[in-house]
Amino acid sequence: MRYSIANTKTTILLLVLLMSSARLYAEDGYDLWLRYKTVTDGKLLLAYRNTISTITVAGESATLLAAKEELQNGLKGLLGKNIPVKNLLHNGSLLAGTASQSAVTRQYISKEEMASAGGEGFIIRSVNHQGKNIIIITANNDIGVLYGCFHFLRLLQTRQSISKLAIVSAPTLQLRLLNHWDNLDRYVERGYAGISIWNWHTLPDYIDPRYIDYARANASIGINGVSLTNVNANAMVLTESYLKKVAVLANIFRPYGIKVYLTARFSAPIEIGKLRTADPLNDTVQKWWNDKAKEIYKWIPDFGGFLVKANSEGQPGPQNYGRDHADGANMLADAVAPYKGIVMWRAFVYSQQSDDRFKQAYAEFKPLDGKFRKNVLVQVKNGPIDFQPREPFSPLFGAMEQTSLLMEFQITQEYLGQATHLVYEAPMFKEVLGTDTYAKGKGSTVAKVIDGSLYHNSLNGMTGVSNIGNDRNWTGHPFGQANWYALGRLAWDYNLSSEEIADEWIRETFSNDPSFVAATKKIMLLSHKALVNYMTPLGLNHLFGNGHHYGPAPWSNNLPRPDWNPVYFHKADSFGIGFDRTVTGTNALDQYAPEVREQYENLNTCDEKYLLWFHHVSWKHKMKSGRTLWDELCYYYYKGTEDIKKIEQQWHQLEKHIDKERFQHVRQLLSIQVKEAEWWRNACLLYFQTFSKIPFPAGYEKPDKSLEYYKSLNFPYAPGN
Amino acid sequence: MRYSIANTKTTILLLVLLMSSARLYAEDGYDLWLRYKTVTDGKLLLAYRNTISTITVAGESATLLAAKEELQNGLKGLLGKNIPVKNLLHNGSLLAGTASQSAVTRQYISKEEMASAGGEGFIIRSVNHQGKNIIIITANNDIGVLYGCFHFLRLLQTRQSISKLAIVSAPTLQLRLLNHWDNLDRYVERGYAGISIWNWHTLPDYIDPRYIDYARANASIGINGVSLTNVNANAMVLTESYLKKVAVLANIFRPYGIKVYLTARFSAPIEIGKLRTADPLNDTVQKWWNDKAKEIYKWIPDFGGFLVKANSEGQPGPQNYGRDHADGANMLADAVAPYKGIVMWRAFVYSQQSDDRFKQAYAEFKPLDGKFRKNVLVQVKNGPIDFQPREPFSPLFGAMEQTSLLMEFQITQEYLGQATHLVYEAPMFKEVLGTDTYAKGKGSTVAKVIDGSLYHNSLNGMTGVSNIGNDRNWTGHPFGQANWYALGRLAWDYNLSSEEIADEWIRETFSNDPSFVAATKKIMLLSHKALVNYMTPLGLNHLFGNGHHYGPAPWSNNLPRPDWNPVYFHKADSFGIGFDRTVTGTNALDQYAPEVREQYENLNTCDEKYLLWFHHVSWKHKMKSGRTLWDELCYYYYKGTEDIKKIEQQWHQLEKHIDKERFQHVRQLLSIQVKEAEWWRNACLLYFQTFSKIPFPAGYEKPDKSLEYYKSLNFPYAPGN
Repeated sequence: MRYSIANTKTTILLLVLLMSSARLYAEDGYDLWLRYKTVTDGKLLLAYRNTISTITVAGESATLLAAKEELQNGLKGLLGKNIPVKNLLHNGSLLAGTASQSAVTRQYISKEEMASAGGEGFIIRSVNHQGKNIIIITANNDIGVLYGCFHFLRLLQTRQSISKLAIVSAPTLQLRLLNHWDNLDRYVERGYAGISIWNWHTLPDYIDPRYIDYARANASIGINGVSLTNVNANAMVLTESYLKKVAVLANIFRPYGIKVYLTARFSAPIEIGKLRTADPLNDTVQKWWNDKAKEIYKWIPDFGGFLVKANSEGQPGPQNYGRDHADGANMLADAVAPYKGIVMWRAFVYSQQSDDRFKQAYAEFKPLDGKFRKNVLVQVKNGPIDFQPREPFSPLFGAMEQTSLLMEFQITQEYLGQATHLVYEAPMFKEVLGTDTYAKGKGSTVAKVIDGSLYHNSLNGMTGVSNIGNDRNWTGHPFGQANWYALGRLAWDYNLSSEEIADEWIRETFSNDPSFVAATKKIMLLSHKALVNYMTPLGLNHLFGNGHHYGPAPWSNNLPRPDWNPVYFHKADSFGIGFDRTVTGTNALDQYAPEVREQYENLNTCDEKYLLWFHHVSWKHKMKSGRTLWDELCYYYYKGTEDIKKIEQQWHQLEKHIDKERFQHVRQLLSIQVKEAEWWRNACLLYFQTFSKIPFPAGYEKPDKSLEYYKSLNFPYAPGN
Repeated sequence: MRYSIANTKTTILLLVLLMSSARLYAEDGYDLWLRYKTVTDGKLLLAYRNTISTITVAGESATLLAAKEELQNGLKGLLGKNIPVKNLLHNGSLLAGTASQSAVTRQYISKEEMASAGGEGFIIRSVNHQGKNIIIITANNDIGVLYGCFHFLRLLQTRQSISKLAIVSAPTLQLRLLNHWDNLDRYVERGYAGISIWNWHTLPDYIDPRYIDYARANASIGINGVSLTNVNANAMVLTESYLKKVAVLANIFRPYGIKVYLTARFSAPIEIGKLRTADPLNDTVQKWWNDKAKEIYKWIPDFGGFLVKANSEGQPGPQNYGRDHADGANMLADAVAPYKGIVMWRAFVYSQQSDDRFKQAYAEFKPLDGKFRKNVLVQVKNGPIDFQPREPFSPLFGAMEQTSLLMEFQITQEYLGQATHLVYEAPMFKEVLGTDTYAKGKGSTVAKVIDGSLYHNSLNGMTGVSNIGNDRNWTGHPFGQANWYALGRLAWDYNLSSEEIADEWIRETFSNDPSFVAATKKIMLLSHKALVNYMTPLGLNHLFGNGHHYGPAPWSNNLPRPDWNPVYFHKADSFGIGFDRTVTGTNALDQYAPEVREQYENLNTCDEKYLLWFHHVSWKHKMKSGRTLWDELCYYYYKGTEDIKKIEQQWHQLEKHIDKERFQHVRQLLSIQVKEAEWWRNACLLYFQTFSKIPFPAGYEKPDKSLEYYKSLNFPYAPGN
């Protein structure tokens, strides 16, 4: 050859990859968890084939057509043969349709049973009908039938028995949403998987087949609404030329039970309406929004409603006119109410005037409880700050008796290693949902707040800030798909365990090989804990690089607002580290119910995973482990890093079980993750050591770079900023 | 179903698309022209199978390994069976390798014949060796062998006979390049196919398999160098953290014969070197560049060199220090000369001080002829303005006797409908290459200038500004792939006709069905002419929307520089339209050789396709057709629009011949193109009519919108700006 190879290690890797080039059909991750590879267990395949012979769909709506297509394609793949669609029932028929459309279904499933499925749930039942074994997939509405069909395919994908099915499933939450933070120029704020899948420029004329596959994926996990645009909103999306584009997406999503929502920029009446004010109590402004709603519903008859970020991080809002959040939300709510639209009003606010960013949302919203219209939900981030690797629950959960709350989780990994770290988020979601707010005594979990059962709110739901982009595999990291999946599955049924969801997803996405499933599940279930430890153990938070939030910068102190700077959050000094939110500090703990407050305010009862969230603690403080705080901090930073190395090694063992494309993709990303875990550990410990002045405990390998080196790094083109 | 369908037309389309959802292996265009589908003509398949039995590759370099992989994968696909790799020759062996590695090859191919292949060319020869029919693919260097293997596969892809092969092929140009205008944040200036395929953030650790497929695609058409970064350059790419990333790409591309180039920001010594000046005659600055070159070559031993845009559109350059382009280029050339690097210095300059933007490049560069180092090429855009749909050739071609010139074409369709218009650019490239400059008398074509034969320059080549992005199909429009392909093929052999190249590409990319090939070729060969007519007929140019260049805005006159405004270029008034560049005007024609000047300056001999480039012509001027200029303008605007409608209808006839995914993609884009052609026609004619005051000729359908409507449109989020 003509050129020398500059880097042997890279070359070897290249050669490995070369082997897979020119492949005809690579496993590129595009199919998500909707892979319908033929069952390889011959006995099981035979059993499935013997159980399913034909498909009968009772009805012809677009939703049922989608269900039929999915069953045909899915079964063709899974069973390795065409399953014909027939009008008459045979032995082995799958009968899909609402009860109202099928006398056979009504014969076997009572009205009471049907009622238990609710508006969106489904029933799957094996019955013997006139000597023929058939499987009924039914629901009260077509969308439930579609959900049931996806569930039925999931049974096969996860190799479950389908011989005696008696399943009733109904969602625990009404609103099961994704929020895209996508700009009209396709830039995705906090996006790490390419640019927006919404190609506004070629809409409404060009329909990317991806839009349909997006709808399929969401329907398969029960997502029933998507907000298309960034909460840092652009009023242009509310103009006719964009509404035409939105209408096409709404048309595509409709058969899949997905409503479209848009973010409403509060100053839109000024920017696109040529008004001089956006005061929510001004008649002209109200009329403008009423007219705008009417226009929107002309284009999109089932438009879901508005999502609003107002008076937050520079966004305009009612406070610009001396009004409050309820004034603003209610104006919009009144505009969409005639069309059954809703308003999701975000509670993510903080103020420079406050002594503690933690307290601001509660301070602004608690007094407004009871003032919001019935079709308003206040959308609350899981924690009081901002999607940190681990946060205690937001004190608004439990505090708003008369207000419907919508849980906002962040699927995209803004503070979780972005798209290069393998982090399974279900345990983080579950931890919040399972926490007891004690709002109405013991057992008042966050889940019961947001499902409306605690206070009997009219609306309820959960949303996830999307991690989706135009990367071929949608989410950048192949395991990012699991977080999209988990959000949907938990919104459908928050009682599912992290392990159950991981089990399903692994089987659907990669392989049903028992040793692969077990090992991968172990990796996933360890991953969030590992990340918390190598980034922000013991209740540390917001140590991230300015703006882009890529990598550690606990030393950062040069942003114009104190509550944007890491030093504000960790408050390390020669005495110790942590944010005192007890009565001796900002007393933020007072925003919780007494039982919660008492637990956290006492150094002895405070769960150490939240320790530095609530206490400024001496470096020498004796932890439950017997170690000093400094030694414990070192212990966890090293443990997190070791755990991710272990994960890397475990993954290497799995090569033989899956396709080389996705194996290699994850393998390479894990090597980045290990490197970055060490970076986090070294940078944070070296920096905190400048305060503690205590050496690293014996036995730990010392950082190979200096603090100055870590401080010198900068990343002007880190994505998603 | 639960929801009404808002838009029936869209719904029908959706249903069509739904049919193709959940497909297992969609034709998504990712494979480009490297599709190796099995030959369906049974007789031909048998003939191919009988001719090819085994593969023997003499040598083990990374390049030959790539050749072997490509042959194996390609033949497996094309022949529908595995072709084994063997050490011994059999009847039907393919023997690939350099002559120096194969005694058998030397036995059949003489040194003289080998010499004719040159450094990068190849020879493919059928011989009978000891009673066995074998096919030899050979070259003087491994890269030629790889090129030969791609060519051999192309023979099968295009269904040619391989029974008596005697092919010698060597490139007509040395440098066959792509220029990416990709920023470090992945934004692509003038990119219409998503964002950059270079994921700088995850390099050097994560290797996207796409990098390898990119290299394969380029090697298959002979591209041997790529400049990775935008000519509006960022000095950061020259820092160590980025050079490490660049080195990985260089390692990936090396086996495929592709060198990496970078754009050098002229002020880099200040921005990343902390110097106070970037004066090219300053010793410290020179040393800085020398050291930087040394550092780059440490990472990338075969680094190609620098591409520079200086003192152009706000970019810094030597003129900031009172020096000239030669001073700047030579400083960089001296820095890379020890490593055999080159400098490509762009001649795209224009000045507010000039009375005619057309003249500026010649004015600045002609006086410098002879002053550039031997390892400098001046990179000249094909025309004097800026990649307009049709331009006369730049007067620099032919004017620079002692300077190596590099032709810069723009593949990305900045002014050619961007990624939603089907425009085959080969005829445009060929038109320029075939034009006679008369620099050394008749026959001094532009092609002879840039291949170095006219003036015997030491370096020569052609580059194309890339249309590649992270869209799954690389180029947005499926037919955009043809332009990437055509640039490479013409750089290899500019004597290939547009039709030959289209024929190859259609067969490789879509189908060998004769009626499909013929119809698609017709569409492609008409497409550029149609676009010129519906956008800028008769020598009009630069009528594009400000900044983003999307759509028509001939009325635009509000940009701070006159030479950025459409009115500057068309100069329509009550008398007529066009830019007088004869002696009565700016006399730009004086920059051409007398023969060219004379031809263009005379209204009677000036080719009417360039008429308004050179003359300000009365609306009533009688054209060769007998029509007045105004009527002729109307005629062409309508003709272009009708032609694109015809193309749309022709495409509709082709549905049965190809996969529905790509058929539908093109179909939808053609409907956009028709709509936009009408927009162009209506907006331009209504606007020009405000000057001509003449009605549209009888028989033309009148625009359905007013000029005011067209003026009111704006596109703040048009891509690529």
